[in-house]
Amino acid sequence: MEIEIYEGVFDANEQLARENQETFKKSGIYVVNLMASPGAGKTSLVMHTVSNLKDRMAIGVIEGDIASKVDAMKLKDLEIPVVQINTGGACHLDANMIKQALPHFDLNSLDLLIVENVGNLVCPAEFRLGENLKVMILSVAEGDDKPLKYPLMFSETDVLLINKIDLLEFCDFDLERARDTVKRMNDRIAIFEISCRTGEGLKAWFDYLYDKVSKKE
Amino acid sequence: MEIEIYEGVFDANEQLARENQETFKKSGIYVVNLMASPGAGKTSLVMHTVSNLKDRMAIGVIEGDIASKVDAMKLKDLEIPVVQINTGGACHLDANMIKQALPHFDLNSLDLLIVENVGNLVCPAEFRLGENLKVMILSVAEGDDKPLKYPLMFSETDVLLINKIDLLEFCDFDLERARDTVKRMNDRIAIFEISCRTGEGLKAWFDYLYDKVSKKE
Repeated sequence: MEIEIYEGVFDANEQLARENQETFKKSGIYVVNLMASPGAGKTSLVMHTVSNLKDRMAIGVIEGDIASKVDAMKLKDLEIPVVQINTGGACHLDANMIKQALPHFDLNSLDLLIVENVGNLVCPAEFRLGENLKVMILSVAEGDDKPLKYPLMFSETDVLLINKIDLLEFCDFDLERARDTVKRMNDRIAIFEISCRTGEGLKAWFDYLYDKVSKKE
Repeated sequence: MEIEIYEGVFDANEQLARENQETFKKSGIYVVNLMASPGAGKTSLVMHTVSNLKDRMAIGVIEGDIASKVDAMKLKDLEIPVVQINTGGACHLDANMIKQALPHFDLNSLDLLIVENVGNLVCPAEFRLGENLKVMILSVAEGDDKPLKYPLMFSETDVLLINKIDLLEFCDFDLERARDTVKRMNDRIAIFEISCRTGEGLKAWFDYLYDKVSKKE
């Protein structure tokens, strides 16, 4: 037995996303929208990425959370500009929230802005922020059936980082199956296998992102 | 730097939730609303719970997903009535979706209805379905800081199942800290530590739920 309940798509966000995009382009900033389930490793990835790239480019971070400054505090020692957005209940960032955060940065001095979205595998996929690159993380602990169950996120993203590969031997996660499923849904996706805990696989991601930011593509 | 963006609370769902509650009460059904992040172990828990209790009570299941029948298919061998709701994009179940699903069950023959919500640690907490018991799962792999970052879910739930404790030695998850944080937010919460993979701790949960359903409390 199956019941389909459709919802309309909300496009009201698009105009503001385009405005943000213009602002970023004028200031020469490359913007990454980082999305994932709660606890997949978004903040760890941001910390590793900033640590590795910050001597080669100027990086700013927007931390999106329902509540708390937990994530922004974790980034304190990196000594880069960080803005924490607390959505007060909303389950995703939208273009307007990003627009409100921008005046808190010196935009002309930045090369890369990483936006860590609210931990949610559903709603953030529907709201463009004006980003150049959508990046998502899937944790091995979440299982390899997630692409089928949360198809929009996996179809929309440019990059998939399969994180926590150090847990592969303890979880029922088939890397081959995950890759195949995702590739069938999204044939232009770039996939990296990483562990933020052990550092495995991260260099390929750093190189990829450095290249993207340098070419602004 | 911190920006607060508040959203109004949507109460339109309440009336329908109360109607569902009346329906359940009349039919003598105890209803569990099961919530968690994607991949925390909801479907595994449903399978274990149904397997253990189905000889002692009549159980039905509603599977809520954005898309796919993956979860409903997993339950096929249990030979109980299962309705799969595909929300077509919506990030949570609401009382109206439940109402639409109910005619597909023989309500008077059921003792327990388990509703597996969409995998999402945010939105499902805002929408009552007419349930007797809110149950959430937090996976050890998600990290022990989640209660601070997704406070509504942890404040609203009646039961917290900390799952995947077989991964404790490989993850930075402090059980004591998680328990303390959650108890400070919600002093009536019941907490169980379990592993759906090894079966550890599940018996206490089965006994707890059996008792609740028997007493209809």
